[in-house]
Amino acid sequence: MINRIDHIAIAVQDLDVALGTFLNVLGCDPASVVIEEVPAEKVRVAFITIGESHIELLEPIGQEGPVSKFIAKNGEGMHHIALATDNIGKETERVTALGINPLGEPSTGAGGKQIVFLHPRQTNRVLLELVEPKDHHH
Amino acid sequence: MINRIDHIAIAVQDLDVALGTFLNVLGCDPASVVIEEVPAEKVRVAFITIGESHIELLEPIGQEGPVSKFIAKNGEGMHHIALATDNIGKETERVTALGINPLGEPSTGAGGKQIVFLHPRQTNRVLLELVEPKDHHH
Repeated sequence: MINRIDHIAIAVQDLDVALGTFLNVLGCDPASVVIEEVPAEKVRVAFITIGESHIELLEPIGQEGPVSKFIAKNGEGMHHIALATDNIGKETERVTALGINPLGEPSTGAGGKQIVFLHPRQTNRVLLELVEPKDHHH
Repeated sequence: MINRIDHIAIAVQDLDVALGTFLNVLGCDPASVVIEEVPAEKVRVAFITIGESHIELLEPIGQEGPVSKFIAKNGEGMHHIALATDNIGKETERVTALGINPLGEPSTGAGGKQIVFLHPRQTNRVLLELVEPKDHHH
């Protein structure tokens, strides 16, 4: 089951500048921000909380990762929508059965959460991600 | 104050097909969907509820509206992020003071809500919208 929008991810060139901008626009407390590196995805990431969701800012590390390539092709902007589920294995099976293919197996993303991306071809060129928060057990 | 993400909008060529896709992916009840036309924006719109937010699917009406032009230029995909506020006038003033310019005056959008778009130049090419739900009074 999909419970909520976990986050909307935005690809940016400079995380610190973009973080300042979005904290200003959203009127958020900088103390609530979590910043981390996700070497597997070659990104530095900031999470800003807004209601039950987050804005995730993605800054590429180096030139080889998917976000670096995205910016080279499209410029900065909205990158993906992440949907929270309490059972990523089951949801991945469910959407696969609908013809929406996962891009690889679920793996560990930012915040130690289990994540999997879905091929955007079947979803109107919107890159979706399934996310299972860390504290769920089956 | 920004309270939550009101919706993420996705520009699509065919609303009915895209609605089927997203209802499937999200596992949502079709009975919860609201569809309407917004002639001022030259779009037909479907809202799918997910947690405290919505996915908004935007299908252009004709060739002249902003969504038609967006698809002609970029193809289908994520179009904007809408932020819910309980005082759109005050928030518009607040972000204008930060150098983020509204695109015109607040006007009536889908669902009879007051909305205003913000110029994406200062926000990493992300088009943001401020939304005030109908039932708020000052």
